[in-house]
Amino acid sequence: MAGFEVHPRLLEDCHRLGRFMLSHVLLHRNAGLPWFILVPEVAIEATELHELDPAQRRALEVEIDALARFLKPALGAQKINIAALGNLVPQLHIHVIGRRTDDPCWPGVVWGNLPEGPEWPAAKVTAIADRLAALHGLQRGRC
Amino acid sequence: MAGFEVHPRLLEDCHRLGRFMLSHVLLHRNAGLPWFILVPEVAIEATELHELDPAQRRALEVEIDALARFLKPALGAQKINIAALGNLVPQLHIHVIGRRTDDPCWPGVVWGNLPEGPEWPAAKVTAIADRLAALHGLQRGRC
Repeated sequence: MAGFEVHPRLLEDCHRLGRFMLSHVLLHRNAGLPWFILVPEVAIEATELHELDPAQRRALEVEIDALARFLKPALGAQKINIAALGNLVPQLHIHVIGRRTDDPCWPGVVWGNLPEGPEWPAAKVTAIADRLAALHGLQRGRC
Repeated sequence: MAGFEVHPRLLEDCHRLGRFMLSHVLLHRNAGLPWFILVPEVAIEATELHELDPAQRRALEVEIDALARFLKPALGAQKINIAALGNLVPQLHIHVIGRRTDDPCWPGVVWGNLPEGPEWPAAKVTAIADRLAALHGLQRGRC
């Protein structure tokens, strides 16, 4: 989509892994838990899920599910937290987070609660993107 | 679904408004902001969105959207927060929350942040359920 840019605040907090069919796929830098953010490339005016058209909605659902299915076996998640909030960053984006009972903010939510932590090592970021490319069609170069 | 019960912890925190086609519709008692919870009547084993079958998923999406569309004009919401968390209550449930820049926890999330507040007056709970019945097919007696 001409002129589409992922919001700079999201890029500050995250690694950019690549693209699914509709969405840019980000990984939060804090390695305290695996926290993906999907940013669907849609019109800037669509800031709520119900403002997407049906084809966009279906594509986004497939992409949310791909991350949720990936998080359990690949990254040890026991529970998935999914949310569309947008109170701070108006651009529509969806959090898909893997939770464990021993993670740094269990059972609380991550927003506002995740302590400063180590960053994901570069090799791990690459490994996650590689597995998402192999299993779920992530396109590495399409950012 | 035989034997299905809404989790008692959700019932403690919420008014029970009625049912949509798939989900029980709850309203959090704290009137600091309008906070609905949908509890789809599905197999107890389905605790993640991606574990629903496609028909359940479509029905749930329609119900989430109905609440989101209702929150803006009817209850003055400026932004919708939608989340499937389940860290404390394992039964699948979806939060659909109307946010305003002057609400008690803006721009933070509500979970863990909403101060004790007044309860919705009984007449207001009834009025909300009545409007959801008229506009979005809420069934009052099917709890």
